[in-house]
Amino acid sequence: MKALVYGGPGQRSWTEVPDPRIEDPKDVVIRVDTVTVCGTDLHILGGDVPEVTTGRILGHEAVGTVVEAGAGVSALAVGDRVLASCISACGVCRFCREGSYGQCVGGGGWILGHTVDGVQAEFARIPFADLSTYKLPSSVTNEAAVLLADILPTSYEVGVLNGRVSPGDTVVVVGSGPIGLAAILGARLFSPAHVIAVDKAESRLQAAKVFGADVTVLADADPLAVVRSLTGGLGADVVMEAVGTPETFELCTTLVRPGGRVANIGVHGKPATLHLEDLWIRNVTITTGLVDTYSTPKLLGMLVAGQLDTGHMVTHRFALDEIMQAYDAFSRPAQSGALKVVLSR
Amino acid sequence: MKALVYGGPGQRSWTEVPDPRIEDPKDVVIRVDTVTVCGTDLHILGGDVPEVTTGRILGHEAVGTVVEAGAGVSALAVGDRVLASCISACGVCRFCREGSYGQCVGGGGWILGHTVDGVQAEFARIPFADLSTYKLPSSVTNEAAVLLADILPTSYEVGVLNGRVSPGDTVVVVGSGPIGLAAILGARLFSPAHVIAVDKAESRLQAAKVFGADVTVLADADPLAVVRSLTGGLGADVVMEAVGTPETFELCTTLVRPGGRVANIGVHGKPATLHLEDLWIRNVTITTGLVDTYSTPKLLGMLVAGQLDTGHMVTHRFALDEIMQAYDAFSRPAQSGALKVVLSR
Repeated sequence: MKALVYGGPGQRSWTEVPDPRIEDPKDVVIRVDTVTVCGTDLHILGGDVPEVTTGRILGHEAVGTVVEAGAGVSALAVGDRVLASCISACGVCRFCREGSYGQCVGGGGWILGHTVDGVQAEFARIPFADLSTYKLPSSVTNEAAVLLADILPTSYEVGVLNGRVSPGDTVVVVGSGPIGLAAILGARLFSPAHVIAVDKAESRLQAAKVFGADVTVLADADPLAVVRSLTGGLGADVVMEAVGTPETFELCTTLVRPGGRVANIGVHGKPATLHLEDLWIRNVTITTGLVDTYSTPKLLGMLVAGQLDTGHMVTHRFALDEIMQAYDAFSRPAQSGALKVVLSR
Repeated sequence: MKALVYGGPGQRSWTEVPDPRIEDPKDVVIRVDTVTVCGTDLHILGGDVPEVTTGRILGHEAVGTVVEAGAGVSALAVGDRVLASCISACGVCRFCREGSYGQCVGGGGWILGHTVDGVQAEFARIPFADLSTYKLPSSVTNEAAVLLADILPTSYEVGVLNGRVSPGDTVVVVGSGPIGLAAILGARLFSPAHVIAVDKAESRLQAAKVFGADVTVLADADPLAVVRSLTGGLGADVVMEAVGTPETFELCTTLVRPGGRVANIGVHGKPATLHLEDLWIRNVTITTGLVDTYSTPKLLGMLVAGQLDTGHMVTHRFALDEIMQAYDAFSRPAQSGALKVVLSR
């Protein structure tokens, strides 16, 4: 089959590889019907995720059809249409038993396109299939469902819920890429007073407005002044980091009010400076996190019910074998205008 | 009267100053009967708290007797024996109304010995006296009560409660000075599996054992190996920082397990490096905080009931006019063996 293979920092190719096969009774193999590219894949290509080794098939967000199921798979059958989530879960380890599936120490966690081969391919092996996939109702399109593989639960759990967005809050989302936009969508569910989007690109700030930001500000303008003017000088209740650079993280810690929360969602490859000389006295809570996907069933229900309008998220559509062009478009959003790119058979 | 006056970094003197007087109807003036020196005072003298200006009377932990009360004071009368807390509270601003007294924006917060004159003096003015003092039952000694002015609520709220210590947890406390020892005492209330004390001085680790640490490790040994050996390689559930240096903070972030909590208690004068390249994926929560003192009434009740054994905290006793020697002893614990030093009339 063909797959998108990581060749070291900056290197990727759509190339012939062996077909995946059942390696464990809990595996399924899916035919990949719809797949997307994540900002995390760009972080991998940028060298920020050194555990990813050369030769790895990338990708952790797909919708597919089960073509083979191991003897230990009980919840799925050949022919089922499933979401393949970015998080695999052994279901047995101490973290899985707490619902912290992202931290699974039983062989799961974020493994697809990370420590095992991923789903940017014609076929893919999905370990721990019963717990790592979700059967999809017919009313949800592949294109909507694939957003549930990562960006919707990640922005919701790691951003909105970790940040404890509450009614009346002033919320800042730094970064208006797909994760930031999904975070704005999720924050709106909690009836905040303001959602302020910060990005360096005006085009992405326009998208942020579509997703529910009522205030937008260019990163090179003065986000601190804007936030202070809306909060009586105090700062924001919740600030979410949705970029993954030291500069944007440090910006977040300046925008938060005393007693507020900074929820880091971004994937980072470098350390940041934590200004404890200012922050020690300010009762700030900083959270980091990989998604656990405990919210995926609920988000799927909200998608079915029409409570999450993701209709503007996918801007570019490609055939699966056009994935090199899809990466080009996704990695140059200023030129392409891309938010989420989706590839289908 | 005489008072301990800050003269800029490294400079302090016990010197004649004007008597304090009622400046606002909500003030009282107390005769200082018992007072102590805080690690924060040493941070001030080290230049870590630049808001403290030359000429400021230091000190924010005292027990005293009301000698004059403003016309707006309703809960206190001349002659009352009171705890003067490190936190003053206007009671009216948005933060006070949430119980976040430490963040008071109505003129209170940590002001004593910081932005207004403090209590290392023969007399002291206590603003917002109704909310900033606590009448003391006769069964509590001055020496026990003065620990309630700062170190007991600070270690409890900012360390134990922010860190969400829970039964069965493995807890690490980095720093076995008075705050770290009080954090160990508070952590024990939640029935943890282990409380591991880390300090660079063997004598302080001995004290940590008295306060409830079951494991001690020298900072220059290998705290990470000790923590991993006790946690199946995972790291600690809760790590409290009770020193206030970049190195100790960074140590804390290496000792915490995925999904764990780092509660910073220390006063910091410099930024630290936050290794987001490791932490982004680990679901870590980091909290900072100035104490709010919402727990002070409850801690006072526990002191009265004998639930908090603070009997080993005070190691050195001085007369009030020996405060220069008391600072010497407190600032050189390796030589003096000092934990908490108490000065009395």
